[in-house]
Amino acid sequence: MAEAIDYDYIGTRPIRPDGIEKVTGRAKFGADEVLPGMLVGKVLRSPYAHANIRSIDTTDAEAVPGVLAVITAADFPDRTNLSAGVRRFSDNIIAGKKVVYHGHAVAAVAALSDSAADAAIGKIVVDYEVLPPVVDALSAMKDDAPLLHDDLTTRGGDESKPSNIAAQQVISKGDVEKGFKEAEHIVERTFVTPMVHQGYIEPHACTANYTETGKATLWCCTQGHFDVRNATARMLRMQLGDLKVIASEIGGGFGGKTTIYLEPLALKLSQLTHRPVRMVMSREEVFRATGPASGTVNTIKIGCKSDGTITAMSAKLIYEAGAYPGSPMGAGSMCIFAPYDVENVRIEGFDVVVNRPRVAAYRAPGAPQSMYAGESVLDELAQEIGMDPLDFRMKNAADEGTQAAYGPRFQTIGLKQCIEAAKRHPNYNVELGEDEGRGIAVGFWFNGGNQSSAEVHITDDGNVMVVEGSPDIGGSRASMALMAAETLSVPYEKVNVNIADTDSTGYCATTGGSRTTFATGLAVIQASESVIRELRKRAAAMMDIDMDQVEWVEGEARPKAGVNVDAEPLSLRDIARGAARTGGPISGRASLNAQGPGPAFSVNMADVHVDRETGLVTVKSFTSIQDAGKAIHPDYVEGQMQGGAVQGIGWALNEEYIYDQEGILENPGFLDYRMPVASDLPMIDTEIVEVPNPNHPFGVRGCGETPIVAPLAAVGNAVSRALDMRISELPMSPPKILEALSEG
Amino acid sequence: MAEAIDYDYIGTRPIRPDGIEKVTGRAKFGADEVLPGMLVGKVLRSPYAHANIRSIDTTDAEAVPGVLAVITAADFPDRTNLSAGVRRFSDNIIAGKKVVYHGHAVAAVAALSDSAADAAIGKIVVDYEVLPPVVDALSAMKDDAPLLHDDLTTRGGDESKPSNIAAQQVISKGDVEKGFKEAEHIVERTFVTPMVHQGYIEPHACTANYTETGKATLWCCTQGHFDVRNATARMLRMQLGDLKVIASEIGGGFGGKTTIYLEPLALKLSQLTHRPVRMVMSREEVFRATGPASGTVNTIKIGCKSDGTITAMSAKLIYEAGAYPGSPMGAGSMCIFAPYDVENVRIEGFDVVVNRPRVAAYRAPGAPQSMYAGESVLDELAQEIGMDPLDFRMKNAADEGTQAAYGPRFQTIGLKQCIEAAKRHPNYNVELGEDEGRGIAVGFWFNGGNQSSAEVHITDDGNVMVVEGSPDIGGSRASMALMAAETLSVPYEKVNVNIADTDSTGYCATTGGSRTTFATGLAVIQASESVIRELRKRAAAMMDIDMDQVEWVEGEARPKAGVNVDAEPLSLRDIARGAARTGGPISGRASLNAQGPGPAFSVNMADVHVDRETGLVTVKSFTSIQDAGKAIHPDYVEGQMQGGAVQGIGWALNEEYIYDQEGILENPGFLDYRMPVASDLPMIDTEIVEVPNPNHPFGVRGCGETPIVAPLAAVGNAVSRALDMRISELPMSPPKILEALSEG
Repeated sequence: MAEAIDYDYIGTRPIRPDGIEKVTGRAKFGADEVLPGMLVGKVLRSPYAHANIRSIDTTDAEAVPGVLAVITAADFPDRTNLSAGVRRFSDNIIAGKKVVYHGHAVAAVAALSDSAADAAIGKIVVDYEVLPPVVDALSAMKDDAPLLHDDLTTRGGDESKPSNIAAQQVISKGDVEKGFKEAEHIVERTFVTPMVHQGYIEPHACTANYTETGKATLWCCTQGHFDVRNATARMLRMQLGDLKVIASEIGGGFGGKTTIYLEPLALKLSQLTHRPVRMVMSREEVFRATGPASGTVNTIKIGCKSDGTITAMSAKLIYEAGAYPGSPMGAGSMCIFAPYDVENVRIEGFDVVVNRPRVAAYRAPGAPQSMYAGESVLDELAQEIGMDPLDFRMKNAADEGTQAAYGPRFQTIGLKQCIEAAKRHPNYNVELGEDEGRGIAVGFWFNGGNQSSAEVHITDDGNVMVVEGSPDIGGSRASMALMAAETLSVPYEKVNVNIADTDSTGYCATTGGSRTTFATGLAVIQASESVIRELRKRAAAMMDIDMDQVEWVEGEARPKAGVNVDAEPLSLRDIARGAARTGGPISGRASLNAQGPGPAFSVNMADVHVDRETGLVTVKSFTSIQDAGKAIHPDYVEGQMQGGAVQGIGWALNEEYIYDQEGILENPGFLDYRMPVASDLPMIDTEIVEVPNPNHPFGVRGCGETPIVAPLAAVGNAVSRALDMRISELPMSPPKILEALSEG
Repeated sequence: MAEAIDYDYIGTRPIRPDGIEKVTGRAKFGADEVLPGMLVGKVLRSPYAHANIRSIDTTDAEAVPGVLAVITAADFPDRTNLSAGVRRFSDNIIAGKKVVYHGHAVAAVAALSDSAADAAIGKIVVDYEVLPPVVDALSAMKDDAPLLHDDLTTRGGDESKPSNIAAQQVISKGDVEKGFKEAEHIVERTFVTPMVHQGYIEPHACTANYTETGKATLWCCTQGHFDVRNATARMLRMQLGDLKVIASEIGGGFGGKTTIYLEPLALKLSQLTHRPVRMVMSREEVFRATGPASGTVNTIKIGCKSDGTITAMSAKLIYEAGAYPGSPMGAGSMCIFAPYDVENVRIEGFDVVVNRPRVAAYRAPGAPQSMYAGESVLDELAQEIGMDPLDFRMKNAADEGTQAAYGPRFQTIGLKQCIEAAKRHPNYNVELGEDEGRGIAVGFWFNGGNQSSAEVHITDDGNVMVVEGSPDIGGSRASMALMAAETLSVPYEKVNVNIADTDSTGYCATTGGSRTTFATGLAVIQASESVIRELRKRAAAMMDIDMDQVEWVEGEARPKAGVNVDAEPLSLRDIARGAARTGGPISGRASLNAQGPGPAFSVNMADVHVDRETGLVTVKSFTSIQDAGKAIHPDYVEGQMQGGAVQGIGWALNEEYIYDQEGILENPGFLDYRMPVASDLPMIDTEIVEVPNPNHPFGVRGCGETPIVAPLAAVGNAVSRALDMRISELPMSPPKILEALSEG
């Protein structure tokens, strides 16, 4: 572990710039854009999970007073010649020839009022040919299962005939057969996890204003307005320069706001009505028609020697994609055994379509499900060989130089440091009571890089204006300001961060995959460095020496030691004030495709109590330990860890999409979809480990994904140890616990 | 004159990007920003032109239901220790200890409704000590005149005692006494011009949202949102980083929207009420309380030999500043004799405060007044020596190398080309009828440079996103797009120009002084050039050769001749599509303080008919000839020329602020303030002369100011020739004409 570096700003905990406005209610969220003459847009959704659309008659709907437009897929550019991926993406926004999930958008209206819009929705006549639905992956994989898509074959599998298996892949290294032969202990078990919701509070919302110029502006809550622009423009066949997207503040996204639903509909309605159109989903629409996390069926087999050496790990991972291909089976496969330095590994993955809404990202997409299964089997093995579960992990832990099954050879990583931190953590040594159990699990996410841009402008009075295009979903304005302050050596208070619209700044990929502090941060650092070069140049002109003779130290331009000049140091403000005389405004910028995000490992531990009478699991304590590389703003790293823990606990204990046999979601709201609230939870203890990422000047690793990966297994292992019985299906809700107890 | 260069885009006439939205009513102007919970802000204005404020009691106003705040100067940061300039600037926004013009802001309120705001305004009790007003410059200059400001002394004059003369200056070269001795003909005459309005249709308007973070956003119609930010933040003692200003579309400015009035009031009201506040001036407020163009009294004396050689020119120019110093006397002095290569020149100028609203810029501020006087005397001289007025100008015309009295030695200029164009213009040879006269006059403006910034981003699909901070007041989006298209060799349609807010882009000085196409244009060109370097670098990586081996030609990166590589040319789109693999998003930027704007000369000619019975002057034809250096978008250069001609005709014939002896404006509205409308005017003929500015890659000279300079004298000279009588006071309205005729 490298020596800790003494930073001036990095690692401090100032209040985030957007904090006060969010607390006082002044911040503008997705539904807060108001434009004169704005219309209400609403969506007609399919009452069937699977049906062909024979025809749609909008005549009566169009005749409703106050209704200005009714649209169907026919109003959008023809999809015949599109690639399958683009066509399906569009079909998901508004159904083409068939509906493939209950709640699938079929038509949309724009009207002067809510009631007119509702009336029109009620008067659209759709003639459906109802088809049998397939609501879970195992049914969908059967040979005789009804097919969702005639033209879908198995990528990486049998491409000769249509199938509900959209993709199939194997990641492997070594020889698992040989490895299992060498094993003295083997555990194999199948785990089922339900579809779950990201739990963001703010429903999807947008306002579109498409003018007669052919140009449009779109306000929306999103994790990535540049990618909203790209996806929406593609569906509408617009030039990217013709669509400006402005990201509102975001009331939670967690991956659920990395794609689009309403945006093309609102734009089309605005185009046809020549008026701005606002669309806001109801909570029910969010549940029925936007992307949750995949349900999975994962079978894990791990073998080890009696001394704890793992000899083979294999997994068969089945992910539900929802109605269109694209589950995070790939990422789930990458993550599952990545923490372990094991010779023989095989991971087989399946991406399966079912008549449910197409899944979307949810923090560390795919990893919680697969690692829940993997870490559960590891726990069982540790119990079988009588080894401390942390020691068992440590014995097999990956380290610098380990070749991960999914490809890379790790650079410096912090897994062992996390395990050590867990081992010495006070919570690991608290005595347990009756019906209590302690579970531990390891989490992992590889983290994202991707493209980012940033500009930095210096005002006359020495303020620093950082401009970038990554929506702030977890305090990134503060992180960017801290990195700019540190790089430029100027007070944090002088740094202002603006998340500009798509017309005003360079491309930034969507905030997600734990890429933003790393990649956009790098862009901000590089843009700040380019400003320092400019400041040195200007100071040199003011001092009448060469730029090479000037250094930037402690927020001042100073003649370097040995330079024979009678010049006082010049502050940022001194140089800024005189900028007109030395060449004009002082600014810098950078764009990059960031390489080398550092993988982030975690160890979570949970103490639970199980009430054998009611089946209620109470989490007594929860400890999240994670390598952040370097925590730019420790509060918000801890917040990520705590939030991920809470979401993971909910996934483990309560949350699930409950579908009936017709493919209709029975709990489309937060009353019946039970997420943990503060009174359900203990304080989540956190410990940030800092093993710097060698590919970032401050050592940053992404920190937003990993926190949700380990909690499922940590809680599952705790429950299993409390009950002395393995429950292999989530959520471990009271009925499930009672059922398990009664089956004994 | 340089050979014409064959451009692909420059010089074409595409529709301006903002055109359709302005025609369809979709464009957002200053009063169009709507925010939830927004309050109405209104201003209480002084009923006296000159008075001390003894006290202000806001108690009753605050008690009006629906009133959320009442403010006076006392709510703003203390002004005691400010520099006189900053203090007076603030005093003009909201009066401190005294009011110095009728309509001067004294207090402001924010309320839930218009009527509540009006009621509160009516309940503010101000105790005034009324003082005698001084309403014109000549009265104000008298020794016993009441003083507007106890602490105002004459800069450049007697600084020992207070005076209403704020500044006094002399520009001279040679020896005018000697010059007049050499003269065979001398004409001396005094001219009076009234205060006039810029005639923008859109009243001043803004919406402020000051949040609990101490940060604020301001929407307003302005010619320069960066300078609005700077001025407003200074008055409120805010950090520049804490105030974001967004420029709306502008419904005319012409210099009148280069300063601020409502903005600090709206922000302060918003800060105190914790609500957004919108303020919109009535037309009457615009007339009574915002800055018009200076009234002047200008005495000109010019001597020449019988062959037309001018031997001496002198001027005494008195400009009314309104209530606070700062008339454009300086610019008026610079311009008046600049078109002539004369050895002996003396120009004395006075900046005089009077109890009227402080003047603001109006196209070519100061020049129309002084050059009206100068060009009138020149016309009289030409008549006296029996010389064609164009020949007379040509004989004395400045050219490359001429040393102007105000300082510079001209580089390449186009005055002679304009005179030649006028001489050969068909309109100069039309036969005149009875009571008709033809007047010609020369116009001049030195043009502005100043600071600008621009960014250029390339989208994946090869669109070009230009970002800059100069509000588009005359088609500059189109000009910027044309210059970017030309530089990058990409179709105009692919170029998008965004005028970003102050938080999102680098500093651009206010659009005015005919600087934007030149200076911001240069920044756009340089930013485009930096993108070309980046494109060559990326193409080189794709072709696996060195960047130096790649050239950018006709919108493609090509291996240079002789480079041994098997690579196809790569288009912008080819490179953009692969940008993620070659280093991330493609962008460039530039900031500069532009030097060397080319001076722009014009020749205007007017044919008028004077009805001796009614006094009505009818403009039969008007021809505007001007050197634009290079017209980037000829339509909008012609539009500038036509608009300036119309405004100058109005100034010459009808427009005037009519004040009574108490300093109260008697015609505060467009009904009584008579501006020419289409039916008053002939088609304005234009001819663009193109003598490239050597300091700009495309040869651009500013073109927005010069058009208004010559029309006053052109019309005046035409009327004078039609009547065979010199009228030396504007406007030459029917009563004035009849009076002159009756006086014979």
